[in-house]
Amino acid sequence: MAGPKVGVVMGSTSDQEIMEECLKALDEFGVPYELTVSSAHRSPARTSEYARRAAERGVQVLIAGAGGAAHLAGVLAAETILPVIGVPIDSSPLQGFDALLATVQMPRGTPVATMAVGKSGARNAGILAVQILALSDPDLSQKLRDFKQKMSQGVEEADRKLKGKRGG
Amino acid sequence: MAGPKVGVVMGSTSDQEIMEECLKALDEFGVPYELTVSSAHRSPARTSEYARRAAERGVQVLIAGAGGAAHLAGVLAAETILPVIGVPIDSSPLQGFDALLATVQMPRGTPVATMAVGKSGARNAGILAVQILALSDPDLSQKLRDFKQKMSQGVEEADRKLKGKRGG
Amino acid sequence: MAGPKVGVVMGSTSDQEIMEECLKALDEFGVPYELTVSSAHRSPARTSEYARRAAERGVQVLIAGAGGAAHLAGVLAAETILPVIGVPIDSSPLQGFDALLATVQMPRGTPVATMAVGKSGARNAGILAVQILALSDPDLSQKLRDFKQKMSQGVEEADRKLKGKRGG
Amino acid sequence: MAGPKVGVVMGSTSDQEIMEECLKALDEFGVPYELTVSSAHRSPARTSEYARRAAERGVQVLIAGAGGAAHLAGVLAAETILPVIGVPIDSSPLQGFDALLATVQMPRGTPVATMAVGKSGARNAGILAVQILALSDPDLSQKLRDFKQKMSQGVEEADRKLKGKRGG
Amino acid sequence: MAGPKVGVVMGSTSDQEIMEECLKALDEFGVPYELTVSSAHRSPARTSEYARRAAERGVQVLIAGAGGAAHLAGVLAAETILPVIGVPIDSSPLQGFDALLATVQMPRGTPVATMAVGKSGARNAGILAVQILALSDPDLSQKLRDFKQKMSQGVEEADRKLKGKRGG
Amino acid sequence: MAGPKVGVVMGSTSDQEIMEECLKALDEFGVPYELTVSSAHRSPARTSEYARRAAERGVQVLIAGAGGAAHLAGVLAAETILPVIGVPIDSSPLQGFDALLATVQMPRGTPVATMAVGKSGARNAGILAVQILALSDPDLSQKLRDFKQKMSQGVEEADRKLKGKRGG
Amino acid sequence: MAGPKVGVVMGSTSDQEIMEECLKALDEFGVPYELTVSSAHRSPARTSEYARRAAERGVQVLIAGAGGAAHLAGVLAAETILPVIGVPIDSSPLQGFDALLATVQMPRGTPVATMAVGKSGARNAGILAVQILALSDPDLSQKLRDFKQKMSQGVEEADRKLKGKRGG
Amino acid sequence: MAGPKVGVVMGSTSDQEIMEECLKALDEFGVPYELTVSSAHRSPARTSEYARRAAERGVQVLIAGAGGAAHLAGVLAAETILPVIGVPIDSSPLQGFDALLATVQMPRGTPVATMAVGKSGARNAGILAVQILALSDPDLSQKLRDFKQKMSQGVEEADRKLKGKRGG
Repeated sequence: MAGPKVGVVMGSTSDQEIMEECLKALDEFGVPYELTVSSAHRSPARTSEYARRAAERGVQVLIAGAGGAAHLAGVLAAETILPVIGVPIDSSPLQGFDALLATVQMPRGTPVATMAVGKSGARNAGILAVQILALSDPDLSQKLRDFKQKMSQGVEEADRKLKGKRGG
Repeated sequence: MAGPKVGVVMGSTSDQEIMEECLKALDEFGVPYELTVSSAHRSPARTSEYARRAAERGVQVLIAGAGGAAHLAGVLAAETILPVIGVPIDSSPLQGFDALLATVQMPRGTPVATMAVGKSGARNAGILAVQILALSDPDLSQKLRDFKQKMSQGVEEADRKLKGKRGG
Repeated sequence: MAGPKVGVVMGSTSDQEIMEECLKALDEFGVPYELTVSSAHRSPARTSEYARRAAERGVQVLIAGAGGAAHLAGVLAAETILPVIGVPIDSSPLQGFDALLATVQMPRGTPVATMAVGKSGARNAGILAVQILALSDPDLSQKLRDFKQKMSQGVEEADRKLKGKRGG
Repeated sequence: MAGPKVGVVMGSTSDQEIMEECLKALDEFGVPYELTVSSAHRSPARTSEYARRAAERGVQVLIAGAGGAAHLAGVLAAETILPVIGVPIDSSPLQGFDALLATVQMPRGTPVATMAVGKSGARNAGILAVQILALSDPDLSQKLRDFKQKMSQGVEEADRKLKGKRGG
Repeated sequence: MAGPKVGVVMGSTSDQEIMEECLKALDEFGVPYELTVSSAHRSPARTSEYARRAAERGVQVLIAGAGGAAHLAGVLAAETILPVIGVPIDSSPLQGFDALLATVQMPRGTPVATMAVGKSGARNAGILAVQILALSDPDLSQKLRDFKQKMSQGVEEADRKLKGKRGG
Repeated sequence: MAGPKVGVVMGSTSDQEIMEECLKALDEFGVPYELTVSSAHRSPARTSEYARRAAERGVQVLIAGAGGAAHLAGVLAAETILPVIGVPIDSSPLQGFDALLATVQMPRGTPVATMAVGKSGARNAGILAVQILALSDPDLSQKLRDFKQKMSQGVEEADRKLKGKRGG
Repeated sequence: MAGPKVGVVMGSTSDQEIMEECLKALDEFGVPYELTVSSAHRSPARTSEYARRAAERGVQVLIAGAGGAAHLAGVLAAETILPVIGVPIDSSPLQGFDALLATVQMPRGTPVATMAVGKSGARNAGILAVQILALSDPDLSQKLRDFKQKMSQGVEEADRKLKGKRGG
Repeated sequence: MAGPKVGVVMGSTSDQEIMEECLKALDEFGVPYELTVSSAHRSPARTSEYARRAAERGVQVLIAGAGGAAHLAGVLAAETILPVIGVPIDSSPLQGFDALLATVQMPRGTPVATMAVGKSGARNAGILAVQILALSDPDLSQKLRDFKQKMSQGVEEADRKLKGKRGG
């Protein structure tokens, strides 16, 4: 059985509700993942260790969700050459502006692929991971093409329904 | 000879100075790329066409740099299943806040891997592209490990120099 | 029977509640419109096609409502010479700052007439469309003058009521 | 000879450099305009009077550029049923955020078609005015289609030049 | 009987709940005031007229509360030499940032004395009006000194109560 | 000879260039003032003492200019029943947003009449002080009416000049 | 019995709910503290006096929580050489941006150790005070090391639980 | 000879100009310090190691200066029970808003004592470190009292000079 391809990390279980959107996306595409709770500030050694070891276990993409002074994705990125995707979470009174800036404004040499704040971003983190994995997996590529087509059809259906309801 | 693996797109040559940081990074890692000027708003059909055709020519990652209401990365992402990296450029009086939000706040289903505003982000876009390509290219992986080590050594050297100058 | 003069587009039915304010305004002035669900990112070809064909069907003004990295109005504006009105919708944790900047900060050559964030903006999009159509329609002009007068009278009435209640 | 179709208003000659971008756009399309200095706060009666009388002189679109607590466009819009376009100008230490919000966040009933902050917005104000006038002027429509095509060709040329310089 | 010394204006009765804080403050100090509903955008002539006539009826201070692109205080200030106090109201999705900037960033020559956003600001508008009137009214001065002392005593009492509850 | 009617305070001589705009305004209206350097944080006792004693020396309005965490106006307002006008100064990298919020967001009971950030605000602080003093000084009232008329005429002249240059 | 080592000050009992987080942290570490209600603006003399006298009573660290134009921490810092910790509280419509900037942007010479906005910041203020006191108190140092370890173990436990629930 | 009491860390020598303000403050008070270049992202292991070992070498306070997604202070704080002071540096196009939020918005359990953005903050970091060390060093306490008095006298002198120049 295949080991996890994606490592999803969150700093606290209070971020779980948001990050479920990411897990659902990975599940939809049948991508095996592992979920880890590890904090940049409360368990830094464990977090670094996790990032340093991820590649050797076959993980290919890391996803980190964090709020406030969201350092988690950056701390992972500092320790690995794997692509790291960051999901800013709006868990402080500043509504995610803090998490967004703390995730995206990374210095030269250590990119974090930053997603939108909150649930949309969590879902998109999963999809970006799939897009990356699909580069060497034709089945995943096909699933992504189907997914894109279904999204497009979904829009057309919504359009038809709306017109049906209003117009006649 | 290998075709381009990365497609770098900018909406206008006024963004070229910033995006050179990206090209330099790709050059450092020996990753073949193609550079295209195409605008989401002034040449939309060409931009969509470019994104739709990129994969079949062997391009694996798209990078888009844009300022203001920066739609370029999103417009590319709408047309391809390749990973798309966005570089927000601070070319309006609002100092890049507009480009950052217009690039990163993508809706569900269409992620853009957003980098920091400006030159740091442009350089990191190149490095993230290398990280993605390295997943199936052990040579690139080794280069990334060397790059990370060199960065670390660079810090140590800077430290030694500074201490030499001040102290000793 | 007259065809639609205004094309109202929204990227998702989740924006419908806001955009109803726009439709109500158009209904109040008796302006025929068509309502379309089409997404800049989930159905890009359909959205571009819609914009390219709108003029030939007699549509004279386009209105687009979108949240987050709100590209919809800009994508329409890229494909048509019709005036395009954008309504930023506050549907992300960043409260509409993202949608506002992504709608208004358009580059040279492709204007989007941007309204206030949310319901006020949606209503005003309808009224601006009427103002544009009224330039060649004396009946609409008269309706607008009546509308302005009624607004003014409404303020006076509110004033009288308030004074009646408080004072005596 | 045709009277002015567009009324361009600025609150102070210090805004002239920005607003020249608007005038240039109108000149490019051969649209006759009138330029007026009138301030919402220093000459309020004159400003209101200007807006009230504009339509009867044949003016069809008003454009207002202002910085800081930019009330000019709103004050014009309060007095006319003509479409009013607002250009926020970054003339205070707050870099145009003040002018943008003071222009765009208009209450229900009185829309201002808001453009980007600064020179891009000023140019686009001119183009939007042309788009509105073109609805009843086939020559202007043709000019706009030519303009759009030229923009698109300009991108292709820039692309060719860049590729010539770098590669070939 | 004394005529009103303070003119309180709001653009819409939806701002009444906030502005009641202002009226309460004026009532506490026994300052006679008049309350008017008049909108900068829906009833501009009436609003200008109100401001132009206020002084001759004995009004000495104007207070205006408005949200969004809050032009009301500025429009009053343009028409009078009386001091004008502005209360920004958070009635849009942008949480009062728009109203604050649209009220405070007035151009040279036309000051608006801007208060905090919302209820605190509304109450303080009343108190500032009292402070201004007190400059020529020794009774009001005494009331303000008493008010300041009572505030100070209120803090001491709250302190005693809290300490009693916790410690003791 | 009349004593000073206005007390202008700045926390540091580095704010002097901005505050000169205020002094010039007071000079234009012939209002006697005193200028004091006193800091909320470096000389707190002196600052409090200054505010406590101002009224008894005949000062009627206080004006404070400060940047960063601009507490000066608030600290003065805490110690006096005189109206206090605050001028936020953009002397930090955050461009005056800090000074603006730290000046305007005063709690209930202690208003600060806040002006625009920087030179416009400094000039307007002087004019607001004149407006307040004019309530009991018919000569100042007349000067203010003349000033308003001159501003209005200045706009008309600027308009004529501009039209002369362009058109004629 | 030991006197209080930490002085916790809040401007109003409405900030008590937030500041309880701080008190709980101090209680957890067994650090004696005193709680005072005193306002920078409503009881300025008392607040200054409190700060001037704190050191002589053995207090070693001051903590101040305040919202809006949060001057409390700065006013304390102006009067003492003790370290002062500031907790910005989000009690205005501007969500704590005002309190954050008014607390952190202190001028040269008068630092305020600023914490995150709201409850996290209040709790961290208590912990920072403990860290400072621990420099001369080996028992507290040990407690802090235990605390850090417990936090780390807490993360591991949360991780185990989550994995147990999902996987197993 | 005494070992360093304060450890000053910066992520890159490009931050040196700002951090010199901190070193100057420590020099003025005769506090021995060590200066280290170490990056949270380019040399993470070294940075963590530095923080873990600082206390055992007698260092009592850590100061970290960083820009952009400023994680440095937080990464240090995660590894030590020493107080950590953070200086946000405005080295990105976002003018320090990113560095401020990424430094101050720390989660529960790991405080960073955040200073103002840029040079003022760097200087204040040095002074806060002195205030902390002074708690167990009466000489430093005396120096701080002298420093505060000198600041106060400096204000008085500036006041005298200004009055001399203008008045006399």
